[in-house]
Amino acid sequence: MSKVEPRTLSGFMELLPQDQIQFNRIKNTIEEVYSSYGFYPLDTPVIESSEVLLAKAGGETEKQIYRFNKGDSDLSLRFDLTVPLAKYVAARYNELVFPFKRYQIGKVYRGERPQKGRFREFYQCDIDVIGNETLSIYYDALIPSIIYDIFKKLNFGDFAIRINNRKILTGFFESLNLQNSVTDILRIIDKIDKIGVDNVKSELNYLGINDDNINRIIDFIKIEGSNSEKISKLKELGIENDTFNSGVNELETVVANLKNLQMNEDNYMIDLTIARGLDYYTGTVYETILKDFPNIGSVCSGGRYDNLATYYTDKKLPGVGISIGLTRLFHQLKENKILNDEANNVSDVTILPLCDNQAYIDQYLKTLIANGIKVDIVYLDKFKQMIKYADKQNTPYALIIGEDEVTNNNAKLKNMKTGDQEEVTINNVVKKLQLTRPTDNIQ
Amino acid sequence: MSKVEPRTLSGFMELLPQDQIQFNRIKNTIEEVYSSYGFYPLDTPVIESSEVLLAKAGGETEKQIYRFNKGDSDLSLRFDLTVPLAKYVAARYNELVFPFKRYQIGKVYRGERPQKGRFREFYQCDIDVIGNETLSIYYDALIPSIIYDIFKKLNFGDFAIRINNRKILTGFFESLNLQNSVTDILRIIDKIDKIGVDNVKSELNYLGINDDNINRIIDFIKIEGSNSEKISKLKELGIENDTFNSGVNELETVVANLKNLQMNEDNYMIDLTIARGLDYYTGTVYETILKDFPNIGSVCSGGRYDNLATYYTDKKLPGVGISIGLTRLFHQLKENKILNDEANNVSDVTILPLCDNQAYIDQYLKTLIANGIKVDIVYLDKFKQMIKYADKQNTPYALIIGEDEVTNNNAKLKNMKTGDQEEVTINNVVKKLQLTRPTDNIQ
Repeated sequence: MSKVEPRTLSGFMELLPQDQIQFNRIKNTIEEVYSSYGFYPLDTPVIESSEVLLAKAGGETEKQIYRFNKGDSDLSLRFDLTVPLAKYVAARYNELVFPFKRYQIGKVYRGERPQKGRFREFYQCDIDVIGNETLSIYYDALIPSIIYDIFKKLNFGDFAIRINNRKILTGFFESLNLQNSVTDILRIIDKIDKIGVDNVKSELNYLGINDDNINRIIDFIKIEGSNSEKISKLKELGIENDTFNSGVNELETVVANLKNLQMNEDNYMIDLTIARGLDYYTGTVYETILKDFPNIGSVCSGGRYDNLATYYTDKKLPGVGISIGLTRLFHQLKENKILNDEANNVSDVTILPLCDNQAYIDQYLKTLIANGIKVDIVYLDKFKQMIKYADKQNTPYALIIGEDEVTNNNAKLKNMKTGDQEEVTINNVVKKLQLTRPTDNIQ
Repeated sequence: MSKVEPRTLSGFMELLPQDQIQFNRIKNTIEEVYSSYGFYPLDTPVIESSEVLLAKAGGETEKQIYRFNKGDSDLSLRFDLTVPLAKYVAARYNELVFPFKRYQIGKVYRGERPQKGRFREFYQCDIDVIGNETLSIYYDALIPSIIYDIFKKLNFGDFAIRINNRKILTGFFESLNLQNSVTDILRIIDKIDKIGVDNVKSELNYLGINDDNINRIIDFIKIEGSNSEKISKLKELGIENDTFNSGVNELETVVANLKNLQMNEDNYMIDLTIARGLDYYTGTVYETILKDFPNIGSVCSGGRYDNLATYYTDKKLPGVGISIGLTRLFHQLKENKILNDEANNVSDVTILPLCDNQAYIDQYLKTLIANGIKVDIVYLDKFKQMIKYADKQNTPYALIIGEDEVTNNNAKLKNMKTGDQEEVTINNVVKKLQLTRPTDNIQ
């Protein structure tokens, strides 16, 4: 029979088993922390009606959509988790309790030109709080606290959550009478880390901004000091603009609450250059970087928006949220060798049955599983095959059970790293497994 | 602005938050048990090349496929998790360790006519062991042991795993010289629970089978008794057919090992009528029913197959596995009111901050979270709104912190069910939460 080549499409991540173990460890940590703060786990369809999904889309995004017909239906695959959330909240408005707190971890689809580090199918891990008409500023501090807990647990080294408020930027530019260029200016400022101060200046100049204002802009985004010093300096600018002052007050409240939330001050900082190049955000904005790997860029971004679902409803639904692009993050952690390659075993112990007394062997299997230990059992013809199997799986222990062990009413526990062997019994086998469940880390 | 109606496509399950909590509890239990037996968590793309995905498909399945073009590519959405597994194992053959044990929990797509209980997007929870050339019969007992652990934990009431071996059926029909009608006969027998003995007889008659053979067939599938009695009766038939005898031996081995694996004998039984209406299976076959809800049909089915990936490779890859159709199962559990509707709270406690001392309040938040408790904190203007919020979320406890509590260095813990309140401190708040984490159950 002629065979079809079993290939996977380019731009689609499909991992080897031991990489998948590491991927899932990260995914599970994110989910555990999200749910520890009492957020609901939302799950929406991958396929939506194109009319619904593309209500807001346009331009580049729309070109990337996987869109097709099935019967009479014009369908599209979701390209983010924000539009499905907007649809869900608008459709279920009367059934939800507000503030509505949900997280969603799922795959989204963008038919981009595949290139290194870009994926056509990728996981997003979104978390948002949606208010009905209003939403307390305290939620703007809760979101970074969640991100903090995640990156502390993931232990990928030092990280910083950078925080800003779009109102400060908007109000500042209004005070310079540059309100009509705000979007363009923010887009340029947003690139300062990538292109440098001089290029930002010349791009601003190209916009028709005079040198005096350009210098004020640069002075403004270069405000230095601790978080409280930055807040003081912003106040000292004496700018009489309501939007600006409201933004400074919000930022002050958020930063004060990050301290209340017991976040280490090394792990967050006001960064006045952060604008997030989207029209969507209206208040607090966040980015997160791994300090040892700044080239990776922001691994987690988000912010506050005034209105989640204008395309579906007249209800005012303000929200604040953040998103981790997990597939891209994993790719970059792997590329930068930040993952702990030791921590990729699927089971804690592999049982090697060398005799036919399955009842005896299965006692060990069931006892270990009942005690929360992940147990592999391998049936192959020869001992040599079985021990090679356990070794390739990177299992820390092998539990060997042959005729002698049955006679002696025990089993042989082999430490696969050191080669040490010891006799264990059904009563002490759990205790004897000195399991150190590893975490991903670079230390 | 004109609005788009925020609708979800028919045939796509999208749950309210509290239903989603219950759905996820089931999904997580399945995943925990799958991974406790040392299986890898595979994750393959939802989109595959049509050439690869449809290498084997045809007929009804092919009509249901979501298939479309993007650029020059002919793409399809996966319709099960078996074809992606076959592709993966064939493609990664040289990098995998055999026997390769993997589970995959993910959404699959079939453009069926939507009807009650049928979905176009649904979760499958598959678990399989794949051997290289050969695969020990002991794995055929390991699979039901895993299913047993899952349904014990889910606690949906009494259940039975029905087991048979296709070789017994095939060999038996060969001995009646009916080998050319085996597929048709098996298809008819498979329906005996639905259509009854008389209809089976008349359908067999319509196939051209004589009355004598029809009676032998009916006598055969009606063999009664305990599992060991059934094995004895099968042996006593004195059928001299290698396939038949090999099937009986395999079934005997599997059933003996289920006992070794400490499965309660009420929860498994040989059922000679089970054929699984697929050409795919070649040995052991399984179905699982909830005894109190037989109308639901099999909630979990699978079996042994000789060759996983004939369309992609010449390698012989025998396997054994089983699949839980989670979306359909959840729908039916809900319809039959088998879910515990009390067990749908997303958090263990909701904090109600009634003063501005966020530093004090956040101490409680962080202490509880650090101790593995799921904590919601709600910021709304009035106490009445906040207590209503906690009530609607079905949270078992509210933790109330106002000026008085700050002064007294404590907090007020309110049992939302009984209305009882007591004072707690930062040191005993964890202990005071008498959390009974509920499971889904019908008791």
